[in-house]
Amino acid sequence: MGEFESIRNIRAQFASLVDQNMEGIGDDCATIMGSDLSQLFTTDILVEGIHFLRDKISPYDLGRKSLSVSLSDIAAMGGTAQSSFLSVALPPTISSDWYDSFIEGYRSVSVEYSVPLLGGDTSRSLRDIVINVLVTGTVSESCRKCRKSGIAGDLIFVGSTLGNAACGLKLRLTSDAIYDHEQSKFLLQAQDNPRPQMALGKYLSQRSEVHAMMDVSDGIASDLLHILEESNVGAEIQLEKVPLSSEMVAVCQANGWSPQALALEGGEDYCLLFTAKTDISDDIFVHTGEKVYCIGRLTDRIGQIEWLLNNVPQQNEFKGFTHF
Amino acid sequence: MGEFESIRNIRAQFASLVDQNMEGIGDDCATIMGSDLSQLFTTDILVEGIHFLRDKISPYDLGRKSLSVSLSDIAAMGGTAQSSFLSVALPPTISSDWYDSFIEGYRSVSVEYSVPLLGGDTSRSLRDIVINVLVTGTVSESCRKCRKSGIAGDLIFVGSTLGNAACGLKLRLTSDAIYDHEQSKFLLQAQDNPRPQMALGKYLSQRSEVHAMMDVSDGIASDLLHILEESNVGAEIQLEKVPLSSEMVAVCQANGWSPQALALEGGEDYCLLFTAKTDISDDIFVHTGEKVYCIGRLTDRIGQIEWLLNNVPQQNEFKGFTHF
Repeated sequence: MGEFESIRNIRAQFASLVDQNMEGIGDDCATIMGSDLSQLFTTDILVEGIHFLRDKISPYDLGRKSLSVSLSDIAAMGGTAQSSFLSVALPPTISSDWYDSFIEGYRSVSVEYSVPLLGGDTSRSLRDIVINVLVTGTVSESCRKCRKSGIAGDLIFVGSTLGNAACGLKLRLTSDAIYDHEQSKFLLQAQDNPRPQMALGKYLSQRSEVHAMMDVSDGIASDLLHILEESNVGAEIQLEKVPLSSEMVAVCQANGWSPQALALEGGEDYCLLFTAKTDISDDIFVHTGEKVYCIGRLTDRIGQIEWLLNNVPQQNEFKGFTHF
Repeated sequence: MGEFESIRNIRAQFASLVDQNMEGIGDDCATIMGSDLSQLFTTDILVEGIHFLRDKISPYDLGRKSLSVSLSDIAAMGGTAQSSFLSVALPPTISSDWYDSFIEGYRSVSVEYSVPLLGGDTSRSLRDIVINVLVTGTVSESCRKCRKSGIAGDLIFVGSTLGNAACGLKLRLTSDAIYDHEQSKFLLQAQDNPRPQMALGKYLSQRSEVHAMMDVSDGIASDLLHILEESNVGAEIQLEKVPLSSEMVAVCQANGWSPQALALEGGEDYCLLFTAKTDISDDIFVHTGEKVYCIGRLTDRIGQIEWLLNNVPQQNEFKGFTHF
């Protein structure tokens, strides 16, 4: 059984326990609606050998990333992060210097976004490092954005160029890759140190033109399906509009990799993906300094993603991302 | 560096980020105080080979226990559980039947205490099963019980006989142990299927005579130190009053084990440990049907636990529990 099917099953099994003021499984965050603010919850588990390789990322960056990826889910609902909870299981081969540096990285992101660490748990493990982070946030109910609010005809936007993190990972795992220093620095930063789009998420939450929103973690070929499923719509993506960084394109060309595949199927972009009924990209830039990119629109062909290149349908079957 | 010292360090590093309406690291649950109710958060990580052995506990019981141990922390603050979040990392050697049964067990406790599962994360792992649970709860601020509210002179109580779970574990790990079926059934149940004392916790939260409260997870020889540290007091324990089950005593006698060591140092009792200015045990029994046991009192000899047997000081140095 696939991950998504398993999650659907669990969601159904627990549905009867979920109160009317709660929204559970099915979005970037769970929500408990309050009289004033609603509370948001998101959790991510990071497992050594699956989500990261111990000798390929510094403990400081791993600490930063552990918190950043969960913050990105709060951004995706238009929320403000409130607190975090960190559980860590460490094998005996991990030194206290490693752990101190990990905590220092985690703390640097906590400070940057004013998110206190309120609790957690620590344990030994036999072999692998496992990290679990839960972040709570708040959002006024009228501003909360969900995956289910997309409407056929909406334009589809992404909050940054895509595939940089995936290209950084590919660089790191390919021993004879060709690249120059500045290119690799940019791409490895995207992989190791994703920047949750908190300010952009908050701005978009206040715009009624914005309908559905989520963050890109598995690549849009996979993530977009969640909006399609929850909103009961389809999507048309104009491949020539998918934004690519010059660094990523250059490295792909030098190594014979497909930039399009990395952009659509590569994961860990941790930028926002949203739909809006009109093109508000200029407004967004003026107010947040963030450049967002229109890449297509929602359709009424439920559950289908159609890939177009200069308006010509493509047969490509893009898939989601698995880490290693 | 020990676990407690490491936690103290982290608490200090993040202290400046914690708002005035928050209480973070240092109690069974973190608290975010609200205008109406306060919100409670507790999280536990369970690691294969450290907290459980895959071939020694059924997936159903493991699912139950994963949620129950966190519920016990909500009980320890006098709260009502509100929602849970479950992260699971599973190696390829785990079958979907195993996982279904695990979820069934988790769900049975969710139903029993009306706690919806609102979210989580699933991942592959290379080798070990890792489970992380976070439970949220609510409590009215005037009823919330903490570790720091103990006062010298308070009587010390525990909510059940101690050491049954530890004895169950010892039985399971000792291949030539001597026991009869009924005894082992009771002790293994205590180990596999702890019962969070939710109703007792809620009742005690409404009694102003109750000062400090927590749950027993590492054995009272270790756990009591948290109350001593946070409340700035000492404790005197009357060893002859430490409650032991007849099953545990019988199995210990048959195998030459020390029931006292298991009761004080054995972990995973998941019963409540609390202090009160008067003996309200009869009231508690009338209102909740739960028998609680007075085992000593708080003193002003800060940080010291004194062990007395029939009023004679003992030299024993009891220690906390480590799983395997």
